[in-house]
Amino acid sequence: MKIHCITVFAFLSFFTSSAQVDNTRNLMPVPSRIITNGERFPITQKFRVAVTGRPDQRLYTQASRFIRRLGEKTGFFLDKQGFVTTRDNDVSSPLLIKVKRPGKLELHENENYSIETSQQQVIITAETDLGAIHALETLMQLVSVDENGYYFPGVVIMDEPRFAWRGLMLDVVLHFMPMDVIKRTLDGMAAVKLNTLHLHLSNDQAFRVESKVFPQLQMESSNGVYFTQENIREIVRYAGQLGIRVVPEFVSPAHTTAILHAFPELGSVKKTYELERYFGVFDPVMDPTNEKVYLFLDKLYSEMASLFPDKYFHIGGDENTGKDWEKTPHIKSFMKAHQLNAFMDLQTYFNKRILPILKKNGKTMMGWDEILQPGVPKDIVIQSWRGNEAYYQSIRNGYQAILSYGYYIDLIQPASFHYLNDPLPKDIDLTKEEAKRVLGGEATMWSEHVTPETVDSRIWPRTAAIAERLWSPQEVNNVNDMYRRLDFASLNLDAIGLRHLSFKPALLRKLANGYDTKALETLVDVIEPLKIYERNQGDTMYTVFSPYTKLADVATPDQPLPRMFTQLVDSFLVSPSPSLEKKITEQLVLWKENHDLFLMTLHNSPVLKEAESLSENLSRMATAGLEAIGLIHQHQTADNNWLQQQQTLFKNAKEQGGRCDLQVVIPIEKLIKSAGR
Amino acid sequence: MKIHCITVFAFLSFFTSSAQVDNTRNLMPVPSRIITNGERFPITQKFRVAVTGRPDQRLYTQASRFIRRLGEKTGFFLDKQGFVTTRDNDVSSPLLIKVKRPGKLELHENENYSIETSQQQVIITAETDLGAIHALETLMQLVSVDENGYYFPGVVIMDEPRFAWRGLMLDVVLHFMPMDVIKRTLDGMAAVKLNTLHLHLSNDQAFRVESKVFPQLQMESSNGVYFTQENIREIVRYAGQLGIRVVPEFVSPAHTTAILHAFPELGSVKKTYELERYFGVFDPVMDPTNEKVYLFLDKLYSEMASLFPDKYFHIGGDENTGKDWEKTPHIKSFMKAHQLNAFMDLQTYFNKRILPILKKNGKTMMGWDEILQPGVPKDIVIQSWRGNEAYYQSIRNGYQAILSYGYYIDLIQPASFHYLNDPLPKDIDLTKEEAKRVLGGEATMWSEHVTPETVDSRIWPRTAAIAERLWSPQEVNNVNDMYRRLDFASLNLDAIGLRHLSFKPALLRKLANGYDTKALETLVDVIEPLKIYERNQGDTMYTVFSPYTKLADVATPDQPLPRMFTQLVDSFLVSPSPSLEKKITEQLVLWKENHDLFLMTLHNSPVLKEAESLSENLSRMATAGLEAIGLIHQHQTADNNWLQQQQTLFKNAKEQGGRCDLQVVIPIEKLIKSAGR
Repeated sequence: MKIHCITVFAFLSFFTSSAQVDNTRNLMPVPSRIITNGERFPITQKFRVAVTGRPDQRLYTQASRFIRRLGEKTGFFLDKQGFVTTRDNDVSSPLLIKVKRPGKLELHENENYSIETSQQQVIITAETDLGAIHALETLMQLVSVDENGYYFPGVVIMDEPRFAWRGLMLDVVLHFMPMDVIKRTLDGMAAVKLNTLHLHLSNDQAFRVESKVFPQLQMESSNGVYFTQENIREIVRYAGQLGIRVVPEFVSPAHTTAILHAFPELGSVKKTYELERYFGVFDPVMDPTNEKVYLFLDKLYSEMASLFPDKYFHIGGDENTGKDWEKTPHIKSFMKAHQLNAFMDLQTYFNKRILPILKKNGKTMMGWDEILQPGVPKDIVIQSWRGNEAYYQSIRNGYQAILSYGYYIDLIQPASFHYLNDPLPKDIDLTKEEAKRVLGGEATMWSEHVTPETVDSRIWPRTAAIAERLWSPQEVNNVNDMYRRLDFASLNLDAIGLRHLSFKPALLRKLANGYDTKALETLVDVIEPLKIYERNQGDTMYTVFSPYTKLADVATPDQPLPRMFTQLVDSFLVSPSPSLEKKITEQLVLWKENHDLFLMTLHNSPVLKEAESLSENLSRMATAGLEAIGLIHQHQTADNNWLQQQQTLFKNAKEQGGRCDLQVVIPIEKLIKSAGR
Repeated sequence: MKIHCITVFAFLSFFTSSAQVDNTRNLMPVPSRIITNGERFPITQKFRVAVTGRPDQRLYTQASRFIRRLGEKTGFFLDKQGFVTTRDNDVSSPLLIKVKRPGKLELHENENYSIETSQQQVIITAETDLGAIHALETLMQLVSVDENGYYFPGVVIMDEPRFAWRGLMLDVVLHFMPMDVIKRTLDGMAAVKLNTLHLHLSNDQAFRVESKVFPQLQMESSNGVYFTQENIREIVRYAGQLGIRVVPEFVSPAHTTAILHAFPELGSVKKTYELERYFGVFDPVMDPTNEKVYLFLDKLYSEMASLFPDKYFHIGGDENTGKDWEKTPHIKSFMKAHQLNAFMDLQTYFNKRILPILKKNGKTMMGWDEILQPGVPKDIVIQSWRGNEAYYQSIRNGYQAILSYGYYIDLIQPASFHYLNDPLPKDIDLTKEEAKRVLGGEATMWSEHVTPETVDSRIWPRTAAIAERLWSPQEVNNVNDMYRRLDFASLNLDAIGLRHLSFKPALLRKLANGYDTKALETLVDVIEPLKIYERNQGDTMYTVFSPYTKLADVATPDQPLPRMFTQLVDSFLVSPSPSLEKKITEQLVLWKENHDLFLMTLHNSPVLKEAESLSENLSRMATAGLEAIGLIHQHQTADNNWLQQQQTLFKNAKEQGGRCDLQVVIPIEKLIKSAGR
């Protein structure tokens, strides 16, 4: 394993290529059925696209984009067909797309498609343009190459989604995400057949949409950073062109500090509210006993509802501490008068007041787990984040639900973890009717610790694995095969313009103060940011003003090198071949020697001080690992004294540094322990 | 010279750092006066900014941004001061900014500043906030580091611009540039103290601004890709916050195919006009004899004038072939009737009709060289692109002018060429009054062959050298020192978010079809896109639909490696030391061996076929170079036969491949020839 550059795992290996395998086995998500027919359709300068039937115009946009992408991939100047238009309907065209009717951009619309490629032609058939657009993404992934040039391998694909709701929630409040991030995120979603963008638009730190009814919201509660209504329309339009619905979330009654900053009279406690600069759960909450609150939300939600054509409207409803209610006498009296025993009953009262506002705007209410309380009507949709149990409980209770528990991509867990989290596992005890209420799922990208620069690396490529879980048949669940195909997906996303790979060198240069980043590259390949909620200790380390350009920001989740190194060590310990020994040794030598280089980098960039212990521990672990390899090689057994010393080393090496931890401690520990046996 | 990665020249060397020199000698543009005082102001967690005086509010925005950037650079959590506000006026603050009055965003406004750093405090003093904002950029560049941490070195800087008009023209027509490109370009401009963004907004291929008066312009003549009026206001606002004026250009009477596509009745020839898909000079031109043209332009220019608050309004006026006038009888008759002998006289007639439209909107007319014809009033501004002669002629004739000839950064010439192009050279024979009419200059980024992905690499870092020419004293003109500082400027721009360095790996991955890019990195370091107008042979190779993701797009102008290699060879030929011989040999071996690796890459990515000859020629040249080194080493002389053979090699190696050419042929040729002596 020769490690020459940070990007080594961003490449496919030449070795793979020499077999000249086409891309039929590399698709992500895997289609329902795929049969190869041994033929091939060669891609040439003469490539053209024709469309027949009655698609929505979005198909022409995407077909034109397909031509552009194909031109970029193959280098062909496909200039003759600048745009695909209704005049392009020659059924003998190289690519023929046949669509029955315009797709409606709504839940449960038909998204099925088939592709048939032969020597003569490529034919896409779909009920709606939404299916045809998915087909174009599959086709793009199919482009293969050998000594004769670019071609589509001969296949028959019949494909359909397993779940109707396949979403990504993007939080644009805790850190704002500008239009270019939104657009490229939508491009990435379309590439893996996700169909719902859920925008989290208000919270304690800001209100992120221009309101013409209450302009104070953006003027006073966004620090000048928000989407204009024109921006929102552009997002909805752009998403719609890709076949993606946009669901807005405006949280109430808690997580409303930003609203209360502009309208303190709506708060439960009469005081001034400052915009929250920390992240977490806070007490400010709207006063559900105040009729002005409902008048306000009627106007605000109606205005926002008109901006988002989708049928679903998310009101959040999560993480109400209830403290500001409990300490306010008139609210306590109100609860007593209305026989509301717990504050969650009061929130249900509040939600029931909100429901008619949404209904008259033609919207279905959606909220996090907490909105599900006794007495809430069945025609709302629950987004489950607190656990699978609660999720199935709500399904059984007659509610439609989507799963987000297990899809929290902000928590830096590996793709395999998310991949095996099935919204409707084989062994679950649900009736057929109940199972129908399992709408699907949503990856959630909370933005406490990401910026426009780093957010792609938290979303991608892991979200492609979640997308496959939500699209492909349940039986597609081999983790190793998923990781193999994730490499292709990652490069596909990279080619589309996602920055999960390309953000790294720039941030490393910044961290190294402009000097050589080699030592950092080696280190960053074997560390990950602290997982779950450990990074922001006590919720007090970071604020919205903190620099997110540090080691924990350039480090990415689910590092491939530690995974591969662990496999190497496991294989070696089973059967210690010289070639495995050589590979492991080379890797350990690199890590051992890296610390001196790191110290030179640190010398020029004191910002790296917080990572010194990580680098030192990596070097020490590698040194001990090399000693262990030496002993194993000589068929010797380590003495107990030496083994004892290593215990301290293991312990230290598991400590965090710069809010990251080393990912190769366990395999090296295994090596060392095995030298003691 | 160890070449381990493409980015090797994007880094400063460790060697530089060990001397622990502070950054006072690395500023770009170089200030008028800088005196070091041996003190230093340590940067700590307690860093805060205070402002006194009466600045425009933009200073608070930039001071807040300064804190954020300083936090990112040093890693300090400077969260305590989220935003700098008018309440931050404690004169003992670590950084104190003293400003007399709000800067007006107009030509000739005072942009001077001084910085004084001592052990106790950093003080910026400026007449206007515009000067203070320049000071913040200088201060950012000054941040230095040693074993004691980050600090501002002790200096007294007195700085002022040499020219008032320091611009960048960005063409958003031939390829559209979205908001994120515009914003980061503005950030880059501010970093090097440019103060004018000139947007080229209409041409034959598209009209790029929403018109509410003539919505057909964007609906029919932009393919859906244009700035809304809200976008324009946002650009003007964002630029204004950075102290940058925005000058719009709407070309007439030629280069108006896009307008004529929507309004064919305004054309000289009565026909339908299709949007132009090629690049170049075309015949369509407005009919200056048609009163409707003036009514139309009155409305259009008035609407556009209201969107751009700047006093200057650019009407293009260039490249009118006159053919459509000459072949149209009623226009010929009109010319005769009005005693207009040449078609340029007719264009002057046209311009004189436009002038009052601009005047009543409070605008000064601006245009390219061609608008300068006998009889044009003196209160217009000429942008000179056709040569220095014409430029000084217009100055002597009483016109104000800015220079763009010599600043055409789209032509891929080296920074040194642009750097030595002085708008007011020492030896020029102008009176003091005439010299005052030399307003400054503008780099011009025409976008035929750039996309949002690649445009940064064409603008930066070379435009920093032009910015220095326009800001710094005339005597600052040492090319080697410029290149030394340009490395710092480039990394500074990279840290700000410009993508001239980071676009490359992603595009290389695309070119290598996802496989290892090492061979391409080595090749791309020694090639440049064809210069001047050679790339687009006969103006017919490329259209607006062509793929700009090829070798010539990832190759960048002004490559550092060929420049350094040439220096190495020159030094070696003067005194052939073993260490120089070793460096040259290592480099040649790398190039020689690279071709085999390239062929593997090509095998996976036929799009690279067009570059095969370049790679092969590089390998052959390197092989011959190594033979030459061997002969020189052994004090032998090459025989004539061998030398003769190399002639063919030289000739072939100078041929283009993939619209690029090799940049190391000449130094290797020198080596070989010297082996024959």
